[in-house]
Amino acid sequence: MGPLATADFYRKIVEETSAACDQEHIPVVICSLPDIPCRTSAILRDGSSPLPRMLDAVDKLMQSEVDCILIPCNTAHYWYNEVRQASGMPVLHIVDAVHEELQARHPGARRLGLLGTESTLAARIYQQRLAEHDYAFTINKPAMREAYVVRAIELVKQGQPKQAGKLVEQAVRQLLHEGVEVPILACTELPLALEAVDSPLLPMCIDTNRALARAGVAWATRQRSRRRPPLAIALPS
Amino acid sequence: MGPLATADFYRKIVEETSAACDQEHIPVVICSLPDIPCRTSAILRDGSSPLPRMLDAVDKLMQSEVDCILIPCNTAHYWYNEVRQASGMPVLHIVDAVHEELQARHPGARRLGLLGTESTLAARIYQQRLAEHDYAFTINKPAMREAYVVRAIELVKQGQPKQAGKLVEQAVRQLLHEGVEVPILACTELPLALEAVDSPLLPMCIDTNRALARAGVAWATRQRSRRRPPLAIALPS
Repeated sequence: MGPLATADFYRKIVEETSAACDQEHIPVVICSLPDIPCRTSAILRDGSSPLPRMLDAVDKLMQSEVDCILIPCNTAHYWYNEVRQASGMPVLHIVDAVHEELQARHPGARRLGLLGTESTLAARIYQQRLAEHDYAFTINKPAMREAYVVRAIELVKQGQPKQAGKLVEQAVRQLLHEGVEVPILACTELPLALEAVDSPLLPMCIDTNRALARAGVAWATRQRSRRRPPLAIALPS
Repeated sequence: MGPLATADFYRKIVEETSAACDQEHIPVVICSLPDIPCRTSAILRDGSSPLPRMLDAVDKLMQSEVDCILIPCNTAHYWYNEVRQASGMPVLHIVDAVHEELQARHPGARRLGLLGTESTLAARIYQQRLAEHDYAFTINKPAMREAYVVRAIELVKQGQPKQAGKLVEQAVRQLLHEGVEVPILACTELPLALEAVDSPLLPMCIDTNRALARAGVAWATRQRSRRRPPLAIALPS
């Protein structure tokens, strides 16, 4: 729920929409509440749960009469079922969006690399959601995760994506060296870091923020072909 | 109310906020309704008024319990008084934000250049709001506006800011050639065009999207120092 990742997510929704003028773009309501409790502390260290504030955000979105919810944060998907149940509307799962991207762009790939917060890895959000598929997951060693991935996420959240870029590149290279076929940037701050340094590694990775944006645009396009344009929604970041 | 300008505006709010972690960023609700009627058609050609849909957006924002409204679109300020009255809360005016920027960065400048939609120019949004100050305004000749400024705005709305960049540069150079001291990018699509080509002319201009973002961050920071963090809001784009 980093605000820079949310801004990036909305930009990617716009970029992924085929439109010749403003009126052909998708109506979106974004509820960005960055003062929500830290997700990683809640999962790993019994910190305050972010769920009550996430459900507040869902309430605000429901009052805005949206038709679909997107959460541009991998770790927050730990509470996916609760959000889905409370909203009573479609909530597109970021791991499903990544799976669609894998099938479209890398149909034969089986060895996936995961870069994300320690809590996303510990909660096995990807492994559980993709359990029925025949994927093998590789993650960086703890020291490398701390010095490169966790540090890079912090830097992006502090508004320094360029400084984060080189760190993420190191972590991606390590995974490729270990035989990973497709590295997944399973924290929405990480694509921002690679983009900031115009990294040649970015096209080899799955950008989970862009994958979710594509899934949202595809959902809205399907609805639009049926009836009036829907209100798609990004929550919360 | 171009969606790419809205995404850019939110990014600039994040960039202009001094924060060491997510929780120090400003809560923001963005209501982006790009299917709102065209503002220029309404002002120049008796087209449908966008005001009813703008007021719908104000309603959604009020339901989200925001404390302040920002409109990242110059032309939409034609309906500023109506939005202000309907919301009953602070609505920061983009021209006031530009004026603050002029006073801070170019205190001696008197000859300003205006690049914007034909409707922003025809409605004299800047000239009226700044009437009590001793500024002289210069605009491009009609043929140049049509071929460079209007075309560039269309290109950004179509997701092609790089193609727009060279056109905006030509229009800015023409104004400088005519003796303008500070060109004002009085349409929030225009800074995106200059940024996309990494233009050396950008720092010489006022980016109205960034000026409004700074005003919003300054407003939220003042509120925060008094009490709990407020909900600042961007509408509607």
